[in-house]
Amino acid sequence: MTVVQIDNYGPWTVTPEPKREADLQVLQAELYADIERLFASKGALAFFCRFDNMFVISNGLTEKDHQEIQQSIRYRYPITISMGIGSGSTAYEAQKIATEALQKFGSSKSSARKEVLAIGNELVNGANSLVQIAHIDINGTTIYTDTKPIYDSYIIVNKVHQILMQELLKRGALVFYAGGDNFISPSNGVSESDFKKIFDSVESTTNVKLKVGIGQGKLAEEAAHLAAKSLDLIRSGKIKNQIHCWVSKSG
Amino acid sequence: MTVVQIDNYGPWTVTPEPKREADLQVLQAELYADIERLFASKGALAFFCRFDNMFVISNGLTEKDHQEIQQSIRYRYPITISMGIGSGSTAYEAQKIATEALQKFGSSKSSARKEVLAIGNELVNGANSLVQIAHIDINGTTIYTDTKPIYDSYIIVNKVHQILMQELLKRGALVFYAGGDNFISPSNGVSESDFKKIFDSVESTTNVKLKVGIGQGKLAEEAAHLAAKSLDLIRSGKIKNQIHCWVSKSG
Amino acid sequence: MTVVQIDNYGPWTVTPEPKREADLQVLQAELYADIERLFASKGALAFFCRFDNMFVISNGLTEKDHQEIQQSIRYRYPITISMGIGSGSTAYEAQKIATEALQKFGSSKSSARKEVLAIGNELVNGANSLVQIAHIDINGTTIYTDTKPIYDSYIIVNKVHQILMQELLKRGALVFYAGGDNFISPSNGVSESDFKKIFDSVESTTNVKLKVGIGQGKLAEEAAHLAAKSLDLIRSGKIKNQIHCWVSKSG
Amino acid sequence: MTVVQIDNYGPWTVTPEPKREADLQVLQAELYADIERLFASKGALAFFCRFDNMFVISNGLTEKDHQEIQQSIRYRYPITISMGIGSGSTAYEAQKIATEALQKFGSSKSSARKEVLAIGNELVNGANSLVQIAHIDINGTTIYTDTKPIYDSYIIVNKVHQILMQELLKRGALVFYAGGDNFISPSNGVSESDFKKIFDSVESTTNVKLKVGIGQGKLAEEAAHLAAKSLDLIRSGKIKNQIHCWVSKSG
Repeated sequence: MTVVQIDNYGPWTVTPEPKREADLQVLQAELYADIERLFASKGALAFFCRFDNMFVISNGLTEKDHQEIQQSIRYRYPITISMGIGSGSTAYEAQKIATEALQKFGSSKSSARKEVLAIGNELVNGANSLVQIAHIDINGTTIYTDTKPIYDSYIIVNKVHQILMQELLKRGALVFYAGGDNFISPSNGVSESDFKKIFDSVESTTNVKLKVGIGQGKLAEEAAHLAAKSLDLIRSGKIKNQIHCWVSKSG
Repeated sequence: MTVVQIDNYGPWTVTPEPKREADLQVLQAELYADIERLFASKGALAFFCRFDNMFVISNGLTEKDHQEIQQSIRYRYPITISMGIGSGSTAYEAQKIATEALQKFGSSKSSARKEVLAIGNELVNGANSLVQIAHIDINGTTIYTDTKPIYDSYIIVNKVHQILMQELLKRGALVFYAGGDNFISPSNGVSESDFKKIFDSVESTTNVKLKVGIGQGKLAEEAAHLAAKSLDLIRSGKIKNQIHCWVSKSG
Repeated sequence: MTVVQIDNYGPWTVTPEPKREADLQVLQAELYADIERLFASKGALAFFCRFDNMFVISNGLTEKDHQEIQQSIRYRYPITISMGIGSGSTAYEAQKIATEALQKFGSSKSSARKEVLAIGNELVNGANSLVQIAHIDINGTTIYTDTKPIYDSYIIVNKVHQILMQELLKRGALVFYAGGDNFISPSNGVSESDFKKIFDSVESTTNVKLKVGIGQGKLAEEAAHLAAKSLDLIRSGKIKNQIHCWVSKSG
Repeated sequence: MTVVQIDNYGPWTVTPEPKREADLQVLQAELYADIERLFASKGALAFFCRFDNMFVISNGLTEKDHQEIQQSIRYRYPITISMGIGSGSTAYEAQKIATEALQKFGSSKSSARKEVLAIGNELVNGANSLVQIAHIDINGTTIYTDTKPIYDSYIIVNKVHQILMQELLKRGALVFYAGGDNFISPSNGVSESDFKKIFDSVESTTNVKLKVGIGQGKLAEEAAHLAAKSLDLIRSGKIKNQIHCWVSKSG
């Protein structure tokens, strides 16, 4: 897992005076699009998260891969990015180690820290790697989108995200919003029955039903693709279940 | 207020088979960056919201302005966008009218509906327009970012967003996440004392302290800029308060 | 006419050591795409030209419009841009005045000059403005593209461009490459019979036949659109001529 | 060498009526930026060339690499791209084979041909590959840029490009414009003394002096980087010569 952090971003946005909000929004969205493209071309998958702090499932990538991405960003943006890398048996543990490694090099708002690459424990070799990704969505969102004010559907999506964050955290998993009614969860170690329990809990609190496709593979790209295919089997009715898992043959 | 909706997006992402997640993420982020740029060049301000459904504070824009943006997207993306426009005394009411106007033209997942421009009641003339924007952030996030795992700070940011959504909704205001620890709220009609009450409620529930800069102007760009400047006065300690409002002289 | 110049770009590309060529190519292409988008949203039209130096037909734009574009670029790129603005009875004269205004502020490779906006004589008010744009293409390129090595067709396109540059320069007009077999010429004062003579000259030298659609309007966008429509009438055979001009009713 | 061709692009730009020129320019520039990024992440180097037809030095890339790039473009643009791949002892020969392979699948303006991947002879394995890249620039362009109208310098740059095309073609090499006063030439088999002769010829015709850094490596990225470093040694005066070649140790 890699944590990507814009160096000294807060102060930059207001120096010498607050920059135009629209320009900042464009910068953030394009930076994420670029980070995603650069990591994805090597089989990884990035999440926008807070935009000034992004997460990447980076199994199989080398130190040099990370450095090249930092360089490419430095050459094309007015800001630089630092990165922390960590691995662990759960995604939460991995990001914790990655964050701590990065924090040792100074504050996110320090003008002294610039383009650090901090390696927490070890990089995960692609051959020994196992990534589990869960692709979750909400049942019947279209009906909602087509009958209620759109902002109302946005509140529900956000509420579901908050509950999923809390529940998955207990199992050491992370969950990111992926747009629409989609959530993607790096969830090594979380079982199908765990998801069943979490979904029951979400339904009892919010009356919202969820489904999930799970994929396992060596790299994030493969796992995410199998997760999406699993979810598509459920959506299309080919599988009569709310939970389906697909394990890569090469995984 | 304008609601922007990708036409028939869900089915497109899985036809003929699920598209690569990284490509979808890049598409969504770049589409938002483009929508933001196109609207911002006319003084408006767009929020990514659900990515497949975005909101725009579009006071002062004409029907032709909207059509040109739809055309520019159609020419450069594999998808098209429909829009609904509404105005009201609160942002919530405006988006409700905008959504309803759009829903009359068919489902967001209908392959028949394509590049609709649905006008709910009336477009707001720039001269008669008043936009209030509140720029909210969290006190002391840097300390948090620099000492806790980054995912933990993400959970807090998301939780604060959820509470702000609920509280501001009661006053007819919307609130969007803008990255980092920033939230932007189209909040016509919400007073400084309303914000004080909401912040007290957030603090008692989560122990998180907020501050807000409020701006008022004819168009979104001006209001957002005054909001950011107000917040900067608080951040820098030039104003000893958690709430500050700046009204455009021309407003 | 506006000349856009990247400040101190050459030295930047090799400091502290030569940057990766692919990153520079991406930077240049995205900068142009952004410059085009920002100017086009105000009715202007930009040409990539040398990439480090671009031209814009900017009739109708104000000083503030230019400043906002400079600011937007500064916020999102690692480089800044300076601009010179000039007007004249021909496009060549206008760009000459624009260049000279810019040159007074120092060298393109000076680290001291940064984000200058140099106004040569006067900005052209949209109401009094007249822009003539000629959209030229090569007859039968498809046959060539489909039967010869692509590089060979590229050489021909480039050769035609060179001759058009020389011939149009004699009439005070500029001509830019627009991709494919397309050239766009800001050509105030060049008549249909002038184009006829130039095309005869090109044909006798290279055996290549050209056609042109000409448009006239108050702003670049309108003129370019009428030029493209004129050319399309010729391409589709609705007009049996190699030259057609369309004057805006409002022009 | 890979030839990238937009499928049925000409007809698309004028159907149902001519699209806005600014939108086409943005589309073309962004497509090239994306193609460059996608190929560069695998060590290749792309040239915009005609924009509707691009060239890529693609040594070391597999068939799957090419397919993934085609898919990524299809998902994010309103157009698709076909590709032809060829190898040869000179760059000209390689592009000729690549073009012919592609042409067998139908016309660039056929609506039937879509996202073809045509392999001419064989893909070049990275291990056996040798790429020579020459990075050429013009002496004293800055003086010119700072004293003459910018359009005049653009004409000279274009004229030099035309002569270089003609001269390098005799030796089987290609040469692309890279912005500013820079040209990049895939030039396997062209010796330093060949360049000396060509430069003498350019100088006698145009009074323009050139210099060149040459790089050799297994993949395009490495060769381009060594070429840029060679040229930088000349520019900085560390090497008193107009021609310098740097061969990769691993090459």
